[in-house]
Amino acid sequence: MREEYRAELVGVTQSLVTMAEGVRTAMRQATGALMAADRTGAEEVIAADAETDARYREVEEQVYELLARQAPVASDLRLVVTALHIAADLERMGDLASHVAKTALRRVPGLAVPEELQPVIRDMSAAADRIAGKVIEVLRTADAERAAELERDDDEIDELQKQLFGLMLGTAWRHGVGPAIDGAQLGRWYERYADHAVNAARHVVYFVTGEPAPVG
Amino acid sequence: MREEYRAELVGVTQSLVTMAEGVRTAMRQATGALMAADRTGAEEVIAADAETDARYREVEEQVYELLARQAPVASDLRLVVTALHIAADLERMGDLASHVAKTALRRVPGLAVPEELQPVIRDMSAAADRIAGKVIEVLRTADAERAAELERDDDEIDELQKQLFGLMLGTAWRHGVGPAIDGAQLGRWYERYADHAVNAARHVVYFVTGEPAPVG
Repeated sequence: MREEYRAELVGVTQSLVTMAEGVRTAMRQATGALMAADRTGAEEVIAADAETDARYREVEEQVYELLARQAPVASDLRLVVTALHIAADLERMGDLASHVAKTALRRVPGLAVPEELQPVIRDMSAAADRIAGKVIEVLRTADAERAAELERDDDEIDELQKQLFGLMLGTAWRHGVGPAIDGAQLGRWYERYADHAVNAARHVVYFVTGEPAPVG
Repeated sequence: MREEYRAELVGVTQSLVTMAEGVRTAMRQATGALMAADRTGAEEVIAADAETDARYREVEEQVYELLARQAPVASDLRLVVTALHIAADLERMGDLASHVAKTALRRVPGLAVPEELQPVIRDMSAAADRIAGKVIEVLRTADAERAAELERDDDEIDELQKQLFGLMLGTAWRHGVGPAIDGAQLGRWYERYADHAVNAARHVVYFVTGEPAPVG
Protein backbone atom coordinates (compact mmCIF):
# COMPACT_ATOMS: atom_id res chain seq x y z
CA MET A 1 0.00 0.00 0.00
CA ARG A 2 2.69 2.42 1.11
CA GLU A 3 4.84 1.49 -1.91
CA GLU A 4 1.94 2.03 -4.24
CA TYR A 5 1.23 5.41 -2.67
CA ARG A 6 4.85 6.52 -3.20
CA ALA A 7 4.74 5.29 -6.79
CA GLU A 8 1.59 7.32 -7.40
CA LEU A 9 3.24 10.42 -5.92
CA VAL A 10 6.13 9.90 -8.36
CA GLY A 11 3.59 9.73 -11.19
CA VAL A 12 2.09 13.05 -10.10
CA THR A 13 5.57 14.58 -9.86
CA GLN A 14 6.32 13.49 -13.42
CA SER A 15 3.14 15.12 -14.68
CA LEU A 16 4.10 18.31 -12.86
CA VAL A 17 7.59 18.25 -14.42
CA THR A 18 6.05 17.90 -17.90
CA MET A 19 3.70 20.77 -17.13
CA ALA A 20 6.53 22.97 -15.83
CA GLU A 21 8.67 22.22 -18.90
CA GLY A 22 5.71 23.14 -21.08
CA VAL A 23 5.12 26.53 -19.48
CA ARG A 24 8.85 27.31 -19.53
CA THR A 25 8.98 26.61 -23.27
CA ALA A 26 5.78 28.61 -23.75
CA MET A 27 7.23 31.75 -22.14
CA ARG A 28 10.49 31.40 -24.09
CA GLN A 29 8.61 31.14 -27.36
CA ALA A 30 6.31 34.00 -26.38
CA THR A 31 9.29 36.25 -25.67
CA GLY A 32 10.89 35.20 -28.95
CA ALA A 33 7.70 36.03 -30.84
CA LEU A 34 7.39 39.34 -28.99
CA MET A 35 10.93 40.46 -29.86
CA ALA A 36 10.74 39.34 -33.49
CA ALA A 37 7.12 40.32 -34.22
CA ASP A 38 6.67 36.67 -35.20
CA ARG A 39 3.00 35.94 -35.89
CA THR A 40 3.36 32.17 -36.29
CA GLY A 41 5.41 31.84 -33.12
CA ALA A 42 2.86 33.84 -31.13
CA GLU A 43 -0.03 31.80 -32.51
CA GLU A 44 1.74 28.56 -31.59
CA VAL A 45 2.13 29.68 -27.97
CA ILE A 46 -1.56 30.54 -27.74
CA ALA A 47 -2.59 27.21 -29.29
CA ALA A 48 -0.23 25.25 -27.01
CA ASP A 49 -1.94 26.63 -23.89
CA ALA A 50 -4.69 24.03 -24.40
CA GLU A 51 -2.07 21.34 -23.74
CA THR A 52 -1.12 22.97 -20.44
CA ASP A 53 -4.79 23.07 -19.47
CA ALA A 54 -5.12 19.37 -20.40
CA ARG A 55 -2.08 18.53 -18.26
CA TYR A 56 -3.64 20.43 -15.38
CA ARG A 57 -6.72 18.24 -15.61
CA GLU A 58 -4.46 15.18 -15.81
CA VAL A 59 -2.79 16.13 -12.51
CA GLU A 60 -6.22 16.75 -11.02
CA GLU A 61 -7.32 13.27 -12.09
CA GLN A 62 -4.19 11.69 -10.61
CA VAL A 63 -4.79 13.52 -7.34
CA TYR A 64 -8.44 12.40 -7.22
CA GLU A 65 -7.32 8.81 -7.85
CA LEU A 66 -4.77 9.05 -5.10
CA LEU A 67 -7.24 10.55 -2.63
CA ALA A 68 -9.94 8.02 -3.46
CA ARG A 69 -7.74 4.92 -3.46
CA GLN A 70 -5.27 5.70 -0.69
CA ALA A 71 -7.48 7.90 1.53
CA PRO A 72 -4.39 9.63 2.96
CA VAL A 73 -4.71 11.55 6.23
CA ALA A 74 -2.78 14.25 8.12
CA SER A 75 0.47 15.32 6.45
CA ASP A 76 0.07 12.82 3.58
CA LEU A 77 -3.26 14.40 2.77
CA ARG A 78 -1.73 17.88 2.73
CA LEU A 79 1.02 16.60 0.50
CA VAL A 80 -1.40 15.31 -2.08
CA VAL A 81 -3.57 18.42 -2.10
CA THR A 82 -0.38 20.49 -2.52
CA ALA A 83 0.03 18.96 -5.98
CA LEU A 84 -3.19 20.75 -6.94
CA HIS A 85 -1.74 24.08 -5.79
CA ILE A 86 1.44 23.49 -7.82
CA ALA A 87 -0.56 22.53 -10.89
CA ALA A 88 -2.75 25.64 -10.51
CA ASP A 89 0.35 27.89 -10.38
CA LEU A 90 1.84 26.21 -13.46
CA GLU A 91 -1.45 26.46 -15.33
CA ARG A 92 -1.54 30.20 -14.62
CA MET A 93 2.06 30.55 -15.85
CA GLY A 94 0.88 29.08 -19.15
CA ASP A 95 -1.88 31.71 -19.30
CA LEU A 96 0.67 34.46 -18.75
CA ALA A 97 2.86 33.17 -21.59
CA SER A 98 -0.27 33.35 -23.76
CA HIS A 99 -0.85 36.95 -22.66
CA VAL A 100 2.67 37.88 -23.81
CA ALA A 101 2.03 36.15 -27.14
CA LYS A 102 -1.30 38.00 -27.53
CA THR A 103 0.40 41.35 -26.96
CA ALA A 104 2.97 40.43 -29.66
CA LEU A 105 0.17 39.41 -32.00
CA ARG A 106 -1.77 42.63 -31.55
CA ARG A 107 1.15 44.68 -32.94
CA VAL A 108 2.34 42.32 -35.73
CA PRO A 109 3.95 43.15 -38.19
CA GLY A 110 5.09 45.96 -35.86
CA LEU A 111 7.10 45.42 -32.71
CA ALA A 112 5.14 45.72 -29.44
CA VAL A 113 8.31 46.66 -27.53
CA PRO A 114 10.05 49.97 -28.41
CA GLU A 115 13.83 49.70 -28.69
CA GLU A 116 14.64 51.36 -25.36
CA LEU A 117 12.43 48.88 -23.45
CA GLN A 118 13.95 45.82 -25.12
CA PRO A 119 16.93 45.33 -22.76
CA VAL A 120 14.80 45.42 -19.61
CA ILE A 121 12.11 43.18 -21.12
CA ARG A 122 14.85 40.76 -22.17
CA ASP A 123 16.26 40.80 -18.64
CA MET A 124 12.81 40.21 -17.15
CA SER A 125 12.17 37.30 -19.49
CA ALA A 126 15.64 35.84 -18.76
CA ALA A 127 14.99 36.04 -15.01
CA ALA A 128 11.53 34.50 -15.45
CA ASP A 129 13.07 31.70 -17.53
CA ARG A 130 15.74 31.06 -14.90
CA ILE A 131 13.06 30.83 -12.21
CA ALA A 132 10.99 28.42 -14.31
CA GLY A 133 14.11 26.30 -14.84
CA LYS A 134 14.66 26.13 -11.10
CA VAL A 135 11.08 25.04 -10.49
CA ILE A 136 11.69 22.10 -12.85
CA GLU A 137 14.95 21.29 -11.07
CA VAL A 138 13.30 21.47 -7.65
CA LEU A 139 10.54 19.15 -8.88
CA ARG A 140 13.18 16.70 -10.11
CA THR A 141 15.64 16.86 -7.22
CA ALA A 142 13.66 18.21 -4.23
CA ASP A 143 16.61 20.51 -3.56
CA ALA A 144 15.25 22.89 -0.91
CA GLU A 145 18.26 25.22 -1.13
CA ARG A 146 17.67 25.66 -4.82
CA ALA A 147 14.06 26.48 -4.00
CA ALA A 148 15.17 29.20 -1.57
CA GLU A 149 17.22 30.84 -4.36
CA LEU A 150 14.02 31.58 -6.21
CA GLU A 151 13.10 34.29 -3.74
CA ARG A 152 16.21 36.23 -4.76
CA ASP A 153 15.48 35.80 -8.45
CA ASP A 154 12.02 37.13 -7.72
CA ASP A 155 13.48 40.27 -6.09
CA GLU A 156 15.48 40.80 -9.30
CA ILE A 157 12.29 40.75 -11.36
CA ASP A 158 10.64 43.29 -9.05
CA GLU A 159 13.68 45.56 -9.47
CA LEU A 160 13.56 45.22 -13.27
CA GLN A 161 9.86 46.06 -13.25
CA LYS A 162 10.67 49.32 -11.45
CA GLN A 163 13.30 50.12 -14.11
CA LEU A 164 10.74 49.41 -16.82
CA PHE A 165 8.22 51.83 -15.29
CA GLY A 166 10.98 54.42 -14.82
CA LEU A 167 11.70 54.35 -18.57
CA MET A 168 8.06 54.78 -19.56
CA LEU A 169 7.36 57.52 -17.03
CA GLY A 170 10.61 59.39 -17.75
CA THR A 171 10.83 62.62 -19.76
CA ALA A 172 12.68 60.83 -22.60
CA TRP A 173 9.65 58.64 -23.40
CA ARG A 174 8.36 59.56 -26.86
CA HIS A 175 6.09 56.65 -27.77
CA GLY A 176 2.92 57.90 -26.13
CA VAL A 177 0.24 55.99 -24.28
CA GLY A 178 -0.34 52.79 -26.28
CA PRO A 179 3.19 51.33 -26.11
CA ALA A 180 3.41 52.39 -22.44
CA ILE A 181 0.26 50.44 -21.58
CA ASP A 182 1.64 47.44 -23.50
CA GLY A 183 4.98 47.79 -21.72
CA ALA A 184 3.33 47.97 -18.30
CA GLN A 185 1.22 44.92 -19.05
CA LEU A 186 4.21 42.94 -20.34
CA GLY A 187 6.13 43.81 -17.17
CA ARG A 188 3.18 42.63 -15.17
CA TRP A 189 2.95 39.29 -17.03
CA TYR A 190 6.63 38.46 -16.42
CA GLU A 191 6.36 39.53 -12.80
CA ARG A 192 3.24 37.43 -12.22
CA TYR A 193 4.82 34.46 -14.04
CA ALA A 194 7.79 34.65 -11.66
CA ASP A 195 5.47 35.05 -8.63
CA HIS A 196 3.58 31.90 -9.53
CA ALA A 197 6.87 30.06 -10.11
CA VAL A 198 8.08 31.08 -6.64
CA ASN A 199 4.76 29.98 -5.14
CA ALA A 200 4.98 26.66 -6.97
CA ALA A 201 8.56 26.12 -5.76
CA ARG A 202 7.51 26.73 -2.15
CA HIS A 203 4.85 24.06 -2.53
CA VAL A 204 7.17 21.74 -4.46
CA VAL A 205 9.65 21.33 -1.61
CA TYR A 206 6.81 20.29 0.64
CA PHE A 207 5.29 18.04 -2.00
CA VAL A 208 8.51 16.20 -2.86
CA THR A 209 10.06 15.97 0.61
CA GLY A 210 7.09 16.27 2.95
CA GLU A 211 9.04 19.06 4.71
CA PRO A 212 7.88 22.70 4.69
CA ALA A 213 10.12 24.91 2.51
CA PRO A 214 12.62 27.15 4.30
CA VAL A 215 11.52 30.77 4.19
CA GLY A 216 14.33 32.42 2.27
CA MET B 1 -22.05 9.49 8.83
CA ARG B 2 -23.90 10.86 5.82
CA GLU B 3 -25.67 13.44 8.00
CA GLU B 4 -22.43 14.55 9.55
CA TYR B 5 -20.88 14.87 6.11
CA ARG B 6 -23.72 17.12 4.92
CA ALA B 7 -23.43 19.21 8.09
CA GLU B 8 -19.72 19.69 7.46
CA LEU B 9 -20.41 20.74 3.87
CA VAL B 10 -22.83 23.35 5.24
CA GLY B 11 -20.05 24.57 7.53
CA VAL B 12 -17.70 24.97 4.57
CA THR B 13 -20.42 26.80 2.64
CA GLN B 14 -20.85 29.25 5.51
CA SER B 15 -17.14 29.98 5.58
CA LEU B 16 -17.21 30.59 1.84
CA VAL B 17 -20.19 32.98 2.22
CA THR B 18 -18.27 34.95 4.88
CA MET B 19 -15.24 35.07 2.61
CA ALA B 20 -17.32 36.19 -0.39
CA GLU B 21 -19.01 38.92 1.68
CA GLY B 22 -15.58 40.06 2.82
CA VAL B 23 -14.14 40.41 -0.68
CA ARG B 24 -17.29 42.16 -1.90
CA THR B 25 -17.00 44.73 0.90
CA ALA B 26 -13.27 45.06 0.20
CA MET B 27 -13.78 45.97 -3.45
CA ARG B 28 -16.57 48.42 -2.59
CA GLN B 29 -14.34 50.16 -0.06
CA ALA B 30 -11.39 50.11 -2.44
CA THR B 31 -13.49 51.80 -5.15
CA GLY B 32 -14.75 54.35 -2.61
CA ALA B 33 -11.18 55.13 -1.55
CA LEU B 34 -10.08 55.34 -5.19
CA MET B 35 -12.78 57.83 -6.14
CA ALA B 36 -12.36 60.00 -3.03
CA ALA B 37 -8.53 59.80 -2.70
CA ASP B 38 -9.24 58.48 0.80
CA ARG B 39 -5.99 57.36 2.42
CA THR B 40 -7.58 55.79 5.52
CA GLY B 41 -10.12 53.88 3.49
CA ALA B 42 -7.43 52.51 1.18
CA GLU B 43 -5.24 51.49 4.10
CA GLU B 44 -8.17 49.68 5.73
CA VAL B 45 -8.78 47.60 2.60
CA ILE B 46 -5.11 46.60 2.44
CA ALA B 47 -5.07 45.67 6.15
CA ALA B 48 -8.31 43.70 5.86
CA ASP B 49 -6.83 41.43 3.19
CA ALA B 50 -5.10 39.48 5.98
CA GLU B 51 -8.58 38.47 7.20
CA THR B 52 -9.46 37.10 3.78
CA ASP B 53 -6.22 35.12 3.76
CA ALA B 54 -7.03 33.78 7.24
CA ARG B 55 -10.50 32.74 6.05
CA TYR B 56 -8.91 30.98 3.11
CA ARG B 57 -6.79 28.92 5.48
CA GLU B 58 -9.91 28.24 7.56
CA VAL B 59 -11.69 26.78 4.54
CA GLU B 60 -8.59 24.76 3.73
CA GLU B 61 -8.59 23.36 7.29
CA GLN B 62 -12.29 22.47 7.06
CA VAL B 63 -11.67 20.70 3.75
CA TYR B 64 -8.74 18.76 5.20
CA GLU B 65 -10.88 17.73 8.17
CA LEU B 66 -13.65 16.61 5.85
CA LEU B 67 -11.28 14.64 3.62
CA ALA B 68 -9.52 12.99 6.55
CA ARG B 69 -12.63 12.12 8.57
CA GLN B 70 -15.12 11.26 5.83
CA ALA B 71 -12.70 9.95 3.17
CA PRO B 72 -15.21 10.82 0.43
CA VAL B 73 -14.82 9.18 -2.99
CA ALA B 74 -15.98 9.83 -6.56
CA SER B 75 -18.31 12.81 -6.96
CA ASP B 76 -18.31 13.57 -3.21
CA LEU B 77 -14.56 13.88 -3.35
CA ARG B 78 -14.75 16.26 -6.29
CA LEU B 79 -17.34 18.28 -4.43
CA VAL B 80 -15.11 18.76 -1.42
CA VAL B 81 -12.02 19.66 -3.44
CA THR B 82 -14.17 22.18 -5.35
CA ALA B 83 -14.46 24.21 -2.14
CA LEU B 84 -10.71 24.78 -2.36
CA HIS B 85 -11.08 26.15 -5.89
CA ILE B 86 -13.85 28.51 -4.77
CA ALA B 87 -11.81 29.68 -1.80
CA ALA B 88 -8.77 30.27 -4.05
CA ASP B 89 -10.87 32.44 -6.41
CA LEU B 90 -12.28 34.44 -3.49
CA GLU B 91 -8.82 34.89 -1.98
CA ARG B 92 -7.58 36.27 -5.28
CA MET B 93 -10.55 38.67 -5.44
CA GLY B 94 -9.40 40.03 -2.09
CA ASP B 95 -5.90 40.58 -3.53
CA LEU B 96 -7.39 42.50 -6.45
CA ALA B 97 -9.36 44.78 -4.12
CA SER B 98 -6.03 45.46 -2.38
CA HIS B 99 -4.44 46.31 -5.73
CA VAL B 100 -7.15 48.91 -6.37
CA ALA B 101 -6.58 50.35 -2.89
CA LYS B 102 -2.81 50.48 -3.49
CA THR B 103 -3.30 52.40 -6.75
CA ALA B 104 -5.50 54.88 -4.84
CA LEU B 105 -2.86 55.20 -2.12
CA ARG B 106 -0.03 55.85 -4.57
CA ARG B 107 -1.76 59.03 -5.80
CA VAL B 108 -3.19 60.35 -2.51
CA PRO B 109 -3.93 63.25 -1.93
CA GLY B 110 -4.41 63.34 -5.72
CA LEU B 111 -7.02 61.33 -7.58
CA ALA B 112 -5.71 58.28 -9.45
CA VAL B 113 -8.62 58.41 -11.90
CA PRO B 114 -8.91 61.42 -14.23
CA GLU B 115 -12.42 62.83 -14.52
CA GLU B 116 -13.17 61.42 -17.98
CA LEU B 117 -12.36 57.86 -16.83
CA GLN B 118 -14.52 58.06 -13.72
CA PRO B 119 -17.85 57.03 -15.30
CA VAL B 120 -16.42 53.90 -16.92
CA ILE B 121 -14.45 52.93 -13.79
CA ARG B 122 -17.65 53.43 -11.77
CA ASP B 123 -19.55 51.20 -14.21
CA MET B 124 -16.85 48.53 -14.04
CA SER B 125 -16.86 48.57 -10.24
CA ALA B 126 -20.68 48.45 -10.17
CA ALA B 127 -20.69 45.42 -12.49
CA ALA B 128 -17.96 43.74 -10.42
CA ASP B 129 -20.00 44.40 -7.26
CA ARG B 130 -23.13 42.96 -8.86
CA ILE B 131 -21.22 39.82 -9.82
CA ALA B 132 -19.77 39.46 -6.31
CA GLY B 133 -23.31 39.84 -4.90
CA LYS B 134 -24.54 37.04 -7.15
CA VAL B 135 -21.73 34.74 -6.04
CA ILE B 136 -22.89 35.22 -2.43
CA GLU B 137 -26.49 34.57 -3.48
CA VAL B 138 -25.52 31.43 -5.40
CA LEU B 139 -23.57 30.19 -2.37
CA ARG B 140 -26.64 30.77 -0.19
CA THR B 141 -29.34 29.49 -2.52
CA ALA B 142 -27.58 27.20 -5.02
CA ASP B 143 -29.61 28.93 -7.74
CA ALA B 144 -28.00 27.64 -10.93
CA GLU B 145 -29.92 30.09 -13.14
CA ARG B 146 -28.55 33.00 -11.16
CA ALA B 147 -25.09 31.52 -11.63
CA ALA B 148 -25.61 31.46 -15.40
CA GLU B 149 -26.42 35.20 -15.35
CA LEU B 150 -22.88 35.92 -14.25
CA GLU B 151 -21.51 35.11 -17.67
CA ARG B 152 -23.54 38.00 -19.10
CA ASP B 153 -22.35 40.39 -16.40
CA ASP B 154 -18.83 39.34 -17.26
CA ASP B 155 -19.37 40.22 -20.93
CA GLU B 156 -20.46 43.68 -19.76
CA ILE B 157 -17.18 44.16 -17.88
CA ASP B 158 -15.18 43.14 -20.95
CA GLU B 159 -17.11 45.71 -23.00
CA LEU B 160 -16.45 48.44 -20.40
CA GLN B 161 -12.76 47.59 -20.41
CA LYS B 162 -12.68 48.19 -24.16
CA GLN B 163 -14.35 51.59 -23.62
CA LEU B 164 -11.76 52.44 -20.98
CA PHE B 165 -8.88 51.65 -23.32
CA GLY B 166 -10.58 53.60 -26.10
CA LEU B 167 -10.62 56.72 -23.90
CA MET B 168 -6.95 56.45 -22.98
CA LEU B 169 -5.78 55.69 -26.51
CA GLY B 170 -7.99 58.38 -28.10
CA THR B 171 -6.70 61.71 -29.42
CA ALA B 172 -8.53 63.63 -26.65
CA TRP B 173 -6.37 62.02 -23.92
CA ARG B 174 -4.26 64.74 -22.30
CA HIS B 175 -3.04 63.11 -19.06
CA GLY B 176 0.02 61.40 -20.48
CA VAL B 177 1.49 58.02 -19.67
CA GLY B 178 1.27 57.66 -15.86
CA PRO B 179 -2.51 57.99 -15.45
CA ALA B 180 -3.00 55.81 -18.55
CA ILE B 181 -0.93 53.00 -17.01
CA ASP B 182 -2.92 53.38 -13.77
CA GLY B 183 -6.18 53.35 -15.72
CA ALA B 184 -5.19 50.22 -17.65
CA GLN B 185 -4.20 48.44 -14.46
CA LEU B 186 -7.41 49.43 -12.68
CA GLY B 187 -9.42 48.14 -15.62
CA ARG B 188 -7.48 44.92 -15.42
CA TRP B 189 -8.10 44.51 -11.64
CA TYR B 190 -11.87 44.89 -12.04
CA GLU B 191 -11.90 42.57 -15.01
CA ARG B 192 -9.88 39.90 -13.19
CA TYR B 193 -12.04 40.32 -10.07
CA ALA B 194 -15.11 39.60 -12.18
CA ASP B 195 -13.39 36.66 -13.92
CA HIS B 196 -12.59 35.03 -10.60
CA ALA B 197 -16.15 35.65 -9.41
CA VAL B 198 -17.52 33.93 -12.52
CA ASN B 199 -15.12 31.04 -11.99
CA ALA B 200 -16.16 30.77 -8.36
CA ALA B 201 -19.85 30.77 -9.31
CA ARG B 202 -19.29 27.96 -11.81
CA HIS B 203 -17.74 25.91 -9.03
CA VAL B 204 -20.35 26.99 -6.47
CA VAL B 205 -23.26 25.43 -8.32
CA TYR B 206 -21.43 22.14 -8.37
CA PHE B 207 -20.35 22.48 -4.76
CA VAL B 208 -23.79 23.29 -3.41
CA THR B 209 -25.91 21.02 -5.61
CA GLY B 210 -23.46 18.35 -6.74
CA GLU B 211 -24.62 19.12 -10.30
CA PRO B 212 -22.27 20.65 -12.87
CA ALA B 213 -23.19 24.29 -13.66
CA PRO B 214 -25.06 24.95 -16.92
CA VAL B 215 -22.77 26.51 -19.49
CA GLY B 216 -24.48 29.70 -20.42
